Amino acid sequence: MPTYRAPVDDVMFLLDDVLHYDRYGNLPGFADASRDVVEAVLNEAGKVAEEILQPINLSGDREGCKRASDGSVTTPKGFKEAWKAYAEGGWISLPMPPEYGGQGLPHVLAHAVSEFMISANQAFAMYPGLTSGAIAAILAHGTEEQKQLYGTRMIAGQWTGTMNLTEPHCGTDLGLLKTKAVPNGDGSYAITGQKIFISAGEHDLSENIVHLVLARIEGAPAGVKGISLFIVPKFEVSNDGALGARNAVSCGSLEHKMGIHGNATCVMNYDGAKGWLLGEPNKGLAAMFTMMNEARLGVAAQGLAQSEVAYQNAVIYARERLQGRSISGVKDAAKPADPIIVHPDVRRMLLEMKAFNEAARAFALWTALEADILHRSPDPEARKAADDHLGLMTPILKGVLTDVGFDNTVKAQQVYGGHGYVGEYGMDQFVRDARIAMIYEGANGIQALDLVGRKLPKDGGRAITAFFTKVGQYVKEKEGDAALKPYVAPLGKALADLQKATMWLMANGMKNPDNAGAASTDYMHLFGLVCFGFMWAQIAEGALARKAREPSQAVLMDAKLTTGKFFAERMLPETGLRLDRIVTGADTMMSLPAEMF
Amino acid sequence: MPTYRAPVDDVMFLLDDVLHYDRYGNLPGFADASRDVVEAVLNEAGKVAEEILQPINLSGDREGCKRASDGSVTTPKGFKEAWKAYAEGGWISLPMPPEYGGQGLPHVLAHAVSEFMISANQAFAMYPGLTSGAIAAILAHGTEEQKQLYGTRMIAGQWTGTMNLTEPHCGTDLGLLKTKAVPNGDGSYAITGQKIFISAGEHDLSENIVHLVLARIEGAPAGVKGISLFIVPKFEVSNDGALGARNAVSCGSLEHKMGIHGNATCVMNYDGAKGWLLGEPNKGLAAMFTMMNEARLGVAAQGLAQSEVAYQNAVIYARERLQGRSISGVKDAAKPADPIIVHPDVRRMLLEMKAFNEAARAFALWTALEADILHRSPDPEARKAADDHLGLMTPILKGVLTDVGFDNTVKAQQVYGGHGYVGEYGMDQFVRDARIAMIYEGANGIQALDLVGRKLPKDGGRAITAFFTKVGQYVKEKEGDAALKPYVAPLGKALADLQKATMWLMANGMKNPDNAGAASTDYMHLFGLVCFGFMWAQIAEGALARKAREPSQAVLMDAKLTTGKFFAERMLPETGLRLDRIVTGADTMMSLPAEMF
Repeated sequence: MPTYRAPVDDVMFLLDDVLHYDRYGNLPGFADASRDVVEAVLNEAGKVAEEILQPINLSGDREGCKRASDGSVTTPKGFKEAWKAYAEGGWISLPMPPEYGGQGLPHVLAHAVSEFMISANQAFAMYPGLTSGAIAAILAHGTEEQKQLYGTRMIAGQWTGTMNLTEPHCGTDLGLLKTKAVPNGDGSYAITGQKIFISAGEHDLSENIVHLVLARIEGAPAGVKGISLFIVPKFEVSNDGALGARNAVSCGSLEHKMGIHGNATCVMNYDGAKGWLLGEPNKGLAAMFTMMNEARLGVAAQGLAQSEVAYQNAVIYARERLQGRSISGVKDAAKPADPIIVHPDVRRMLLEMKAFNEAARAFALWTALEADILHRSPDPEARKAADDHLGLMTPILKGVLTDVGFDNTVKAQQVYGGHGYVGEYGMDQFVRDARIAMIYEGANGIQALDLVGRKLPKDGGRAITAFFTKVGQYVKEKEGDAALKPYVAPLGKALADLQKATMWLMANGMKNPDNAGAASTDYMHLFGLVCFGFMWAQIAEGALARKAREPSQAVLMDAKLTTGKFFAERMLPETGLRLDRIVTGADTMMSLPAEMF
Repeated sequence: MPTYRAPVDDVMFLLDDVLHYDRYGNLPGFADASRDVVEAVLNEAGKVAEEILQPINLSGDREGCKRASDGSVTTPKGFKEAWKAYAEGGWISLPMPPEYGGQGLPHVLAHAVSEFMISANQAFAMYPGLTSGAIAAILAHGTEEQKQLYGTRMIAGQWTGTMNLTEPHCGTDLGLLKTKAVPNGDGSYAITGQKIFISAGEHDLSENIVHLVLARIEGAPAGVKGISLFIVPKFEVSNDGALGARNAVSCGSLEHKMGIHGNATCVMNYDGAKGWLLGEPNKGLAAMFTMMNEARLGVAAQGLAQSEVAYQNAVIYARERLQGRSISGVKDAAKPADPIIVHPDVRRMLLEMKAFNEAARAFALWTALEADILHRSPDPEARKAADDHLGLMTPILKGVLTDVGFDNTVKAQQVYGGHGYVGEYGMDQFVRDARIAMIYEGANGIQALDLVGRKLPKDGGRAITAFFTKVGQYVKEKEGDAALKPYVAPLGKALADLQKATMWLMANGMKNPDNAGAASTDYMHLFGLVCFGFMWAQIAEGALARKAREPSQAVLMDAKLTTGKFFAERMLPETGLRLDRIVTGADTMMSLPAEMF
């Protein structure tokens, strides 16, 4: 049976010694969230993850969701009770505004909590995850009435939310969508169409399900400029929140998926269902993007979370499984064989995961802190810089954390040999569950295009310039520090690779946009590596300082320093290869006729 | 529904224009296998794959194998009929010696055929695959009686075979195995123990199942030197082949696996089952390796085969799926969107697969031809060189083709977006089926260790020296050819990287074996890239010659030249990164205490 232990200590180390959480104390609301409060909340979240969600992960995968002939859907055993505990524990309301029943705690804390919950049970964590996204869209674009009616009940976990974008013929290209909305004359609309791949579309966890649905109002312009966003509740609701008639929206079938079996992925049929506009007509895409950006960071967390739990289980197995002898001499003569963690190639796999997990966690928490600045800072300049950071980093976090996170679940499975391919240890579930994160909320190729096509040139390259300045200054400040050299010197080299790639894109991507497209995925990963390198340099700095301050922490801090060195030596040099690929351009790949593939 | 078309044309191009099959005509038996015979057999094999095996692949995955309470196992619908057609069509007997009922056709032909069959249905193809491996072991190590009794019936497809190595506590480290064999006094042994992960261990396809089982004769030395190999038939057999009593071997349960659901992976219980020694006592491991080496090449074919079929389906989808517009301008204004094959990043994914598939196929066929030389050449020097080649290339083919093949199934699935994650197109099956090939017949980390630890130093480095000479001479001969320059110049650079890595290993791996272990996986992939580069240079050479000779083939040959250029520009430069990693050595990864992971 797989196990999980929430990495509370690593989060606290990152907040205390790397990201300097104490410096954010003057942000509104942070006074209520001292580092001790944060630690207490994380410990409590860890318990929920370990004791409530993790034990129903493997069984949820085996059992899956079931649709009855009346269209109702049953979640796996234990999910209903877990939802109750989750909602009552305040885990949905944690970062939400107090005026709608939220606790107003920092986003960074909510992000750390969500990593734990996903590691324990991704299929389950998607229910509150989608609900949180829908809440964000309603709070950002809804009327005060909608916020009170829907927002408060979703924050309380009484109702859940979904996002309905995809149709059979359109996913990425939402301009093609056909679902239509016809005014009923009473302020509501009749929504008709079919949506597919709708996570948490129908289930038995909550009293009501609030679907946010993209549709085209009759007579609206073609393409993305004619799309509006609607609130379509499963049960109609009166103003006091009482449930009324069953709305004409139903789950037509459940998708037969590779993984996340505990989450109900539905084909949703809207047959003149009653919906209410959320935000302005024909501005639905912008409103949906409020939800989408939130969701992308949540999906990035899935990449890390699956890598973390898969890694933890691989380590346990590598320490326990006795097989073969160390090639540099027997390590445990009393046993019939050495544990496989003595083998360098097993360590290589484990260290690749560990080095990613710790840097990715730092990167995600850093960005979550910037989200707090964006949402809370009274300083407009600080908010603008934070917004730039979030815009630039969201596609990188989503694309890189899910690509590498998935690869890591495969590596963790590999550590188990044949025992990883069969169900008993649950390692294949991590692979199957992690796989979806590379696809949904914008496939990773779309993230890469968003990065090179939109985020780089935006505002004259203001965000990327700020990033280069920040990392460049850091390298310059620290390059004389001998203890930091193993981390900072490779970071400087990697940064130079990223700068060269960026220059190349500026020179060649404008001339021929296919050059930008051909470079996009390599560029995204190159960027991600530089971010990880920047994190590792700061982790090393924090570890050295902590070790000097608290000698009792030396062993733990040395482990971080070693892991960072492994990253700098073996993983960061990949930036050179990515750059080499980028500058070859698009000509060769575009010259092959489509029929000759 | 997924589809498949056997790449007969590509195999014929490789045999005709790249590997120069005609030069092998003087090998015994090749006279009966003219290129026209080969082409006819391949076309026939393609039909079997496309029309019989492929249609029951997805359904076989969904249905899986079922074990009844009496221990009998039922294969999915259609497998029984397919087995009959397969056996009667002579697909098992194809490369087997005529004296035992085989057709004596070249190994290279059998290898090409097996690629097709696996692409169409890996779970099915494992039944004949394991049978072929067991036949090889019996023909190599059996008595004449055993060859006649078991060999002929397995070659006819009347009986099938299995290999029984793994036990719950030992897979890689067979020295730990506990299954015991006690002499019955009549020449037979009573075999007792439990074996796990036994593919095709029990099923309803054949009249009898011939298990080859590793066990320890009572009183034998500990470790690998006390292991013997036994023939344990499901039904005892009399000398005329008539089936007798049910032997005390049974399927205790079926493993719940990630994929290959159509193949019965069994826990096999031996409760004093009657077995007969195959080969010498205590030399079982060597005998099993006859089977294992054969099996490793078969598993390599699985990596390629899954990549090929996943690629074919990704191409179909990329040409049909309309989504978004080309970033360099609308390509098909009459349609609501362009097909996604216009997007550079989609082409990148497809070309990475295509460039691998064609080079991997060339590499595998080249090695299969060397196997023919080994088995047929009257010239001892030629046989020795072929044996060196096979020894060196087997771990590379197994490790690299299955690692990259798996990655390619993930890429192909990615082309489908959300539609790749759900079952309708069957793309997730390719991923789940391909995943096992990285694990069984020696996990890929073991292949890498076999390469650096055994195959490189063997006979004073004779095999690797011959390889360097061969590729080095080729580069030298061709480097002045302007048309070949895009292929040969990068090959020269990649070869230099491999030579540097090899020198580094020689200097540092002896001093500290952990350095070799730490380098092993990177070295294996670096080696694989050089082999692919060598193949691409020769494919380009063949394509240029063919184009000059047959102008009607220009479009097809140009596609190969473009694909090879893509490989040289974007994929081959990975050798530099692999070398960088190798020379960092083992110190950092070995310095982390096991308890600090």
